[in-house]
Amino acid sequence: MSGTRTHPIFTIQPREPVSERRIAHLSRLAARVRELNESVVLTELPEEELDEIAAQAEALTARLRTARRAAPPVVTNGAGGIMQQLAGPVNGVLNPIAPPCEVQFLPDGTVRSEFTLNSVYEGPPGMVHGGVSAMILDQLLGMVADHNGTPGLTASLELRYRRPTMLDEPLVAEARIDRVEGRRAHAAGRILNTEGKPTIEATAMFIMPM
Amino acid sequence: MSGTRTHPIFTIQPREPVSERRIAHLSRLAARVRELNESVVLTELPEEELDEIAAQAEALTARLRTARRAAPPVVTNGAGGIMQQLAGPVNGVLNPIAPPCEVQFLPDGTVRSEFTLNSVYEGPPGMVHGGVSAMILDQLLGMVADHNGTPGLTASLELRYRRPTMLDEPLVAEARIDRVEGRRAHAAGRILNTEGKPTIEATAMFIMPM
Repeated sequence: MSGTRTHPIFTIQPREPVSERRIAHLSRLAARVRELNESVVLTELPEEELDEIAAQAEALTARLRTARRAAPPVVTNGAGGIMQQLAGPVNGVLNPIAPPCEVQFLPDGTVRSEFTLNSVYEGPPGMVHGGVSAMILDQLLGMVADHNGTPGLTASLELRYRRPTMLDEPLVAEARIDRVEGRRAHAAGRILNTEGKPTIEATAMFIMPM
Repeated sequence: MSGTRTHPIFTIQPREPVSERRIAHLSRLAARVRELNESVVLTELPEEELDEIAAQAEALTARLRTARRAAPPVVTNGAGGIMQQLAGPVNGVLNPIAPPCEVQFLPDGTVRSEFTLNSVYEGPPGMVHGGVSAMILDQLLGMVADHNGTPGLTASLELRYRRPTMLDEPLVAEARIDRVEGRRAHAAGRILNTEGKPTIEATAMFIMPM
């Protein structure tokens, strides 16, 4: 198909490039809307005022939609052409629903993220939703497979919940490649609480393209 | 502790009750902010206008925060006292980051949800983020355990990715209880694409309190 390009895993339709400058502006907008999400979940404002704010949010949406992309912005990294989502739901600085988890690529081949989750991500009272933790670990395990040069499609993800993961306290997530067997890359990761104890342990298997 | 009450699993600090009427207003506000999230991810508006909208979103947040709850609204269902999140990140109608997946409890003891996911939930290009699917399945598996009268803390969650889950097409997620062994409830679930083929299969084990 005209205009498509080859990626190690996916065929990607070209997306409008986004400048560094534009990323900075979009990132500030996403940060403000991220705060708005949290304020909606915790507001005690009277009902009439809620209706006014809903109308104002609707107007902002209408204005943002006057010029619209077909798909979220991405950038590609270096020669490998690994696509990086700028608006992914876990670490996307351009996505208001992402915490966002800023992911560091360490020299030893592992990846790591420090973050705190607020009430928007609540599952059991006062705790992080188990599925939100699963989503974060899925992201980190996929990123460590990319970082290791063995990107693939997720074939399986297994999570073991050891102890509660709490809202509003600093958490750490980390992931590493365990082993590579032929086209299969096995990754392992976990979330640690403020005491450094694992709350969730995860493993995933990625199948690399032929 | 004064004012706490007993829940089958958690000790819950009392939360301000929320009226049906207020839920309707909050739900409309969350719906408008949900649309705003999507419009942020796909906007091509010029940078100066993005800054104006960011400032307006900031003002809405400030106003919502003038009256603030300590924790998101919940309701409890019937005599069992099972807490229902109204602002959970998967099916919470009061949470702008939730799709939201409306979950039906069927007479045969299973649960089911029909939903479509937009660009806010993108992972690989054009596809649903694998972690978002994991989050949705985690929620449904937990709800079917509750529905079955065997609520518990998630001990493990295992996902097998069979084929891509696509954005912008109607999906179905379903879950059932497989078996209960002593204090352990085993649940199974899956996501089906528009052709009715499973894209992801999941199992989970819940440990019920003593």
